[in-house]
Amino acid sequence: MATARVTFLPDAESVLVESGTTLLDAAIAAGLPLDGSCGGRGICQRCAVSVVDGPLEALEGAASTVDGRVLACRMAIVGDVTVDVPADSRIEGLEILTGVDRAAGILATSDQLRAVALFDVGRYPLEPLAAAVPLALPRPTIDEAPSDLGMLRRELRREHAVDELVVPLPLLRKVPERIRASGRRVTALLAHRDGGHELLDLLAGHEGRPFFGLAVDIGTTTVVVHLVSLGSGETAGVAAALNGQLTLGEDVISRIIHAAEPDGLERLRRIIVDEVNVLVGSLALAHHVDRHEIIAAVVAGNTTMIHLFLGLPPGEIRREPYVPVATAPLVYHAADIGLRIHSRAVIACLPGAGSYVGGDITADVLATGMDRRTELAMLIDAGTNGETVIGNRDFLVCCACSAGPAFEGGGTSCGMRAARGAISRFEMQADGSLAYEAIGDGPPRGVCGSGLVDLLAELLRAGVLDRSGHLRPGATGVREDDSGLRVLVAPAPATATGEDIVLTAADLQTLLRSKAAVYAGVAVLARRLGIDMTDLERIYVAGGFGTSLDVGKAMLIGLLPEVPVERVTFIGNGSVTGARMALLSRAAWERAAELAEMMTYRDLSVDSTFMEEYVSALFLPHTDAARFPRAHAALGVG
Amino acid sequence: MATARVTFLPDAESVLVESGTTLLDAAIAAGLPLDGSCGGRGICQRCAVSVVDGPLEALEGAASTVDGRVLACRMAIVGDVTVDVPADSRIEGLEILTGVDRAAGILATSDQLRAVALFDVGRYPLEPLAAAVPLALPRPTIDEAPSDLGMLRRELRREHAVDELVVPLPLLRKVPERIRASGRRVTALLAHRDGGHELLDLLAGHEGRPFFGLAVDIGTTTVVVHLVSLGSGETAGVAAALNGQLTLGEDVISRIIHAAEPDGLERLRRIIVDEVNVLVGSLALAHHVDRHEIIAAVVAGNTTMIHLFLGLPPGEIRREPYVPVATAPLVYHAADIGLRIHSRAVIACLPGAGSYVGGDITADVLATGMDRRTELAMLIDAGTNGETVIGNRDFLVCCACSAGPAFEGGGTSCGMRAARGAISRFEMQADGSLAYEAIGDGPPRGVCGSGLVDLLAELLRAGVLDRSGHLRPGATGVREDDSGLRVLVAPAPATATGEDIVLTAADLQTLLRSKAAVYAGVAVLARRLGIDMTDLERIYVAGGFGTSLDVGKAMLIGLLPEVPVERVTFIGNGSVTGARMALLSRAAWERAAELAEMMTYRDLSVDSTFMEEYVSALFLPHTDAARFPRAHAALGVG
Repeated sequence: MATARVTFLPDAESVLVESGTTLLDAAIAAGLPLDGSCGGRGICQRCAVSVVDGPLEALEGAASTVDGRVLACRMAIVGDVTVDVPADSRIEGLEILTGVDRAAGILATSDQLRAVALFDVGRYPLEPLAAAVPLALPRPTIDEAPSDLGMLRRELRREHAVDELVVPLPLLRKVPERIRASGRRVTALLAHRDGGHELLDLLAGHEGRPFFGLAVDIGTTTVVVHLVSLGSGETAGVAAALNGQLTLGEDVISRIIHAAEPDGLERLRRIIVDEVNVLVGSLALAHHVDRHEIIAAVVAGNTTMIHLFLGLPPGEIRREPYVPVATAPLVYHAADIGLRIHSRAVIACLPGAGSYVGGDITADVLATGMDRRTELAMLIDAGTNGETVIGNRDFLVCCACSAGPAFEGGGTSCGMRAARGAISRFEMQADGSLAYEAIGDGPPRGVCGSGLVDLLAELLRAGVLDRSGHLRPGATGVREDDSGLRVLVAPAPATATGEDIVLTAADLQTLLRSKAAVYAGVAVLARRLGIDMTDLERIYVAGGFGTSLDVGKAMLIGLLPEVPVERVTFIGNGSVTGARMALLSRAAWERAAELAEMMTYRDLSVDSTFMEEYVSALFLPHTDAARFPRAHAALGVG
Repeated sequence: MATARVTFLPDAESVLVESGTTLLDAAIAAGLPLDGSCGGRGICQRCAVSVVDGPLEALEGAASTVDGRVLACRMAIVGDVTVDVPADSRIEGLEILTGVDRAAGILATSDQLRAVALFDVGRYPLEPLAAAVPLALPRPTIDEAPSDLGMLRRELRREHAVDELVVPLPLLRKVPERIRASGRRVTALLAHRDGGHELLDLLAGHEGRPFFGLAVDIGTTTVVVHLVSLGSGETAGVAAALNGQLTLGEDVISRIIHAAEPDGLERLRRIIVDEVNVLVGSLALAHHVDRHEIIAAVVAGNTTMIHLFLGLPPGEIRREPYVPVATAPLVYHAADIGLRIHSRAVIACLPGAGSYVGGDITADVLATGMDRRTELAMLIDAGTNGETVIGNRDFLVCCACSAGPAFEGGGTSCGMRAARGAISRFEMQADGSLAYEAIGDGPPRGVCGSGLVDLLAELLRAGVLDRSGHLRPGATGVREDDSGLRVLVAPAPATATGEDIVLTAADLQTLLRSKAAVYAGVAVLARRLGIDMTDLERIYVAGGFGTSLDVGKAMLIGLLPEVPVERVTFIGNGSVTGARMALLSRAAWERAAELAEMMTYRDLSVDSTFMEEYVSALFLPHTDAARFPRAHAALGVG
């Protein structure tokens, strides 16, 4: 295989890669976090670099150049090459939650990641869903000559308590040769499956190298993949990208509608499978892992995402009574799905509770451990589809409400995802002006979810916004034009786009409806259970906002129920954390199946009190002062 | 699909078939048992017919004509056609044991077969390895909306005690459509597998038609297939052919040697898989069964045959310490193996005890039921590889000895398989001449196994043969020429070949060595267990000789141990009977797995007493008169 050296300026980082590798993959291999948000499909155009010297070949398909630069993801290396990486093509700010630590960021180096304390994994013993077992098989004698398979089973039973062992036929055909190729020393790649074990592969000799697994979170918006050593349990690397299906619909409902078109389901399925393959390929390249050494994956995602990943028709999910094809734990092989890792690698999708509470929430619960404690806890995953779980080790009840994409950056004129240029924090200055902090420290482009919460809270506290969500005409920063009142968040000269960033009256109504939906879901579920918010000993906040949400401000606007602030714990990307736990511990995987069974799903669409709660929550923080005493006191009302 | 009418003279039987059907398949469909010994590959040339009128198209490959006739197996029907079937192209005599009844014969019509009492199947409840389960799924409501898979599992658990249910991904993708296509009425095709259940298919609506399974016996010499209704347990039809691998080697050792050649294993595998496909195709056509309605098969065969069927390298079977790849129960899908039935049909190979006691013997034991009684019994399968099992419900011990093919028609100048023209019975007349009876009532071509036993016994009784197996010069019928003494069995004018059928001194030695090996195996095994032959309360004789063996004569020559004749039971093709039982009863399948574990294999090649027993058994009936008192009395010796 021909190799080529790639040098990245200005730091002169260089790396040797196989000819044919894309420039983006080479950058990842070099430890240079080039922005590949779209998963390397030439869509986001964020990986643009300038060629200084040397040959490159454009890939077929999407455009490979933009404004005189080349897209690293669309260029194959065909010889030694030097490129210059402009600062704005590097990932620094994109805050896709990768489930490690808010400080670790995306595409963190393996050293950083190894140093990060793993969230709550210690609860379950390290016993991965798939593992490499070295065996030295005794030599058969005329008095004791079991079959090759019999000998293998006997030693696995004796040494590793493996009872039932399923061996696929193509592998069984190779067993005699594999046993004899290295003096009866073999490495059995074993997976837990259907209550027994499956032999994924049998390698001649004992392998010194480790084997790997994947923890995958398929979100509606982002996809995160952890490459995890199955021997040590350590995460070797993390890769993330925007879900490429975004181009075909922002939320699950629009994806379901697209899936009903001719070839729509297959198109969506291919996009997500290809995307996971690209991310895994980058990780494998960066961490010098052979794809065939990846022998298991646990996938978490909401019910629709799992349907699209597996190619299951999701149509009934959006039709009353909202019946998915399956929510049970589903275990297949990489080859069944098209993942380019070991073809017999087990791909296990975490089970969910229903159409709108999926395996991602099961993973969240697994990650929190709330199911093992007596403490009464609530989990809130306030994404587009806001999920809530209340319970403890004795019971778990869950619901979902359509909160809309406002807190994920959609549906408002100033909203954007938590990426470079997004304002994530606001503080009202004494002079009534707004100070802000944008991701990546450059000029702002818009406001992300946690920024919007900050903004609402600051405007409310300053009296710019009244309790029904209307701007006060004449208040500092409030402007009026033909289309109504608005707040100037950042003026055109200060922004990256050269246009004003503004919050309109319509934006405010959208945000209010989102926050009311989230809170109403929480409140109805609690009411049904006869629980008062103050009974909650712990509130876990997952996904959605990221970890930069200011809890006090979220309570001030009535998004989160008001409890002592120290009771709130951020779990970040609980979905990928839970997937990682299930990958690394059979007990956790089995617990996930129990959890999904245990989580009673309540459909709020038929609850008569939902509308009542929703209307009350359209106020800031809420019509009922008794529920938000601190907020009301701070605002000097109630 | 275009159809054509085929008329078979002289009986003017006619049948309507799809264009493209071979003439052989059409004959089978018409209920005309044309001889397709080679499985329709143009090798045996026994299906030759004369074309009277109408078009036929020769298939590519092997020759399609012989002596002005066409081979029915090599000719495709392309329009209405009339052919004349000469008497010698009809199967009448081929006595491949099809496991139903000695009277039923091969390719018996379904009416005949339905009337035959099934051998000993009543012992196990009818609960087939795969079954069609009609379900009416309740309509989900907003309060009770499990997933499609969840609903299916719930109903299967509630109505049919199905616990775990594995659903292959391509099928899961179709589940929603199948459920809704026929008002939530579905037919689940379920198979028992790995301790749980697998959904093979889900059909919309309730099927009125039955589903079928196959019981398959793959012998070194012959292949027998039963098409069995999984609903009623009845055999709809039986087809049989010579094992096409015969052209690549007569016995298992020569096949193993061939398998080691480049592509040898794949060639052998294809031959047997193609052959089973041809037989199944004929049965499906004849009994109006769609191949896709065949959803399970249980296959019995000796360890080498199962290796070749599954494509497992058999090389170590013939090398000390004789290690097969696997003897455990192996369950795969039709698509894994290349059987052209329902692609997800379960194909279950019966387990064996070792390299030389395979699943066919497990099936024999299952068929006899000796493993469930207190009575001490012995099973003898005196084929090329003579297997013996001794035991009862408390223990089972087995051995094998290489008896050679003499009693299956090989290795002697006059020997032939039990086919048309084979002499199966002899009786010495008062004048010293030999009266005989040939299969098919035509002129004889040779002598089959049971005929050879008869011949030896009659010659011994008449004093033509002495107790050490030598012909007495000058005795009636004994001739001498340059190559030594011989017996004229049938003179040239009376034979089908126009040549004398003779038994030479060398033939006698071959036969003696075979019978000595079989008896020595039996005797050593009994001695090891401290069992006297007279302790045996029952002797089962399976396969090999067929059911036409004269027990008294077999004891007279010392082939079978001497016990009261009424203790001997013929089980015919116990291999296919056992396969049928396992197909129809999960309990029998599970029992087979227990049996294979329970059967302790004794390797006689390391037993010092074997040679001693063998030498003693080279006498007729044996050197030890105490073991054969009746025989010695009848012969006036001892």
